[in-house]
Amino acid sequence: MRYVMVQIPNTPASASPAPRSVPTSADVARLAGVSRATVSYVLNNTGAARISEPTRRRVREAAEELGYVPHAAARSLRAGHSRMVLMPAPAFPVGPLYGRFISELQWALGRLGYTVVQYGSVGLHGDEAARAWAELRPVAVLVPGSGPGPRGVALLRRAGARAVVTVGPERVEGAHAVLLDHDGVGHCAGAHLYARGRRRIGVVVPAEPGLEPFSRPRLAGVRAALRGTDAEVTELPLAYEERAAAELAASWRRFGLDAVFAYNDEYAMLLMRALQDEGVRIPDDTAVLGADDLMLGRLLRPRLSTIHIELPAGRDLADLVDRAVRDPGLAPEAHQVLGASVVRRESS
Amino acid sequence: MRYVMVQIPNTPASASPAPRSVPTSADVARLAGVSRATVSYVLNNTGAARISEPTRRRVREAAEELGYVPHAAARSLRAGHSRMVLMPAPAFPVGPLYGRFISELQWALGRLGYTVVQYGSVGLHGDEAARAWAELRPVAVLVPGSGPGPRGVALLRRAGARAVVTVGPERVEGAHAVLLDHDGVGHCAGAHLYARGRRRIGVVVPAEPGLEPFSRPRLAGVRAALRGTDAEVTELPLAYEERAAAELAASWRRFGLDAVFAYNDEYAMLLMRALQDEGVRIPDDTAVLGADDLMLGRLLRPRLSTIHIELPAGRDLADLVDRAVRDPGLAPEAHQVLGASVVRRESS
Repeated sequence: MRYVMVQIPNTPASASPAPRSVPTSADVARLAGVSRATVSYVLNNTGAARISEPTRRRVREAAEELGYVPHAAARSLRAGHSRMVLMPAPAFPVGPLYGRFISELQWALGRLGYTVVQYGSVGLHGDEAARAWAELRPVAVLVPGSGPGPRGVALLRRAGARAVVTVGPERVEGAHAVLLDHDGVGHCAGAHLYARGRRRIGVVVPAEPGLEPFSRPRLAGVRAALRGTDAEVTELPLAYEERAAAELAASWRRFGLDAVFAYNDEYAMLLMRALQDEGVRIPDDTAVLGADDLMLGRLLRPRLSTIHIELPAGRDLADLVDRAVRDPGLAPEAHQVLGASVVRRESS
Repeated sequence: MRYVMVQIPNTPASASPAPRSVPTSADVARLAGVSRATVSYVLNNTGAARISEPTRRRVREAAEELGYVPHAAARSLRAGHSRMVLMPAPAFPVGPLYGRFISELQWALGRLGYTVVQYGSVGLHGDEAARAWAELRPVAVLVPGSGPGPRGVALLRRAGARAVVTVGPERVEGAHAVLLDHDGVGHCAGAHLYARGRRRIGVVVPAEPGLEPFSRPRLAGVRAALRGTDAEVTELPLAYEERAAAELAASWRRFGLDAVFAYNDEYAMLLMRALQDEGVRIPDDTAVLGADDLMLGRLLRPRLSTIHIELPAGRDLADLVDRAVRDPGLAPEAHQVLGASVVRRESS
């Protein structure tokens, strides 16, 4: 499939004006006939100084006329801190569940007066990434997935971050932790399939890189749930592609599995279709269980069973960030998000 | 479904050290026994000044010991510009296609030495949003969807943004435009269904807010493709919920439609399932056509027909940004992305 990006000829009307030099608060002060401090008071809405309404209006009109906007970085340099909460953009492919979580969190932090900035630090890892984030001098850093080590956290704190919060499977020294219980997701899946009488259980692990921090504890959770029982666990790497699913399905009978827990609903839907195309009856021959409770799983026949996972509420997480910013000496807290539950439909 | 966030008691080992004051380049200079200018030369990798390797090492060791990191904002204040490309986080729900586009773009801009920052300006619109972005003094702004008006663009440019690029259905004065041809998507859909002999064609328009900039031109494109023919177009608002789809399907025969083009594959899959549950035969009674070419559409039976849409290549877009940053006087360019094509499977 090809795509074409065609340049459209310019109309004279849309020609660019040569950019003027960037107006400063000194320009505004000059035009309004006031001091720079007054400009700063008015435009940054500092309540402290008493300035008459006509003066305020003059300053605002001058700023409007010149197109002057305060400089967030200059303001935070003066204030010694910013209101910027930095969130490294996750390095793993983001599903709809996670997307909703991010939106809710941004909204909740916005309400508390923070500016959320997502930083795409492609190719940077661990403490090297922490250094890049520190250069932006955020007041707090919220790291999804596996983040910086203890040195990275210390570096961020020394660069003025009043709080570092990780949201993932593990705790990092010096940082607040919101621990997602992926182990519990696997445990829940293993226990459900065992209770349904299944004993030879496959676990689909994505072949795509970046998802290991989530897939490994899920697999471990299944194993833990079945330890000491007569059930067996088989790890099944699978790429998110039709061909890979068809290949796995073609050799399915060799494995002799009577159940499979896929990493998430998308992998489960992909594999279930491939198994059906191979004549494997779901759930009679093999039970299929996903995770994430996506709506699309309900559209398949049989309807996909799944593990419903609760992510932390954006509001709770925003409150934790705010509390830590207000009290930078707050001892690191660890919060465990518990919320895996089976949604049994027709495929298990 | 409830979720629980439980605080785990602290172990003494993880207690937070009281944060020290933020180290400055002056601290580094003092410890290394050099000037602040030397610290700046070494740590910002300015090639201009000749500094001996032992001195460089001393500065780096001192920075390491103190945990000093250069301040990006201070550096950009000195330099007069930053390398930050600001991308407002889109206000609409992001699908997998768009998510991939964003990742590719971040990667391409990262390779060119830019730092991509996604800004979550929840609740801000038009020129008000442009003002908030301008405060961060980005060197370029890349706006997905419908963005600021001409005043907002002018404001951003005056605040030092060397380029403003919009990626959406419309052109904004003063900004470079990458025009996505959503009209063409609808046109392609209408022409396909007409060629398949369908004459009473429904168009699903999402009931969710924020998607109008995309859904309106798609509907208009269908209408344009069928103008002057004997075909009729019916607009069908639909919320992305099973119940809404079931209600629409229950009254389906009333509409007497022999085809439906849904806004995207997700809406198409939702509606197709509801129609099947009502006993509507696909495609015999009603043809169903989606858009986006998601893999999941291939997993349904009948396999979902779709419109494959090409988004601009991240690399091309990154090149446009870079070209505009290097030459701020560059007249605004408009690029049209052409790439809608039918992928006919079994549902149409």
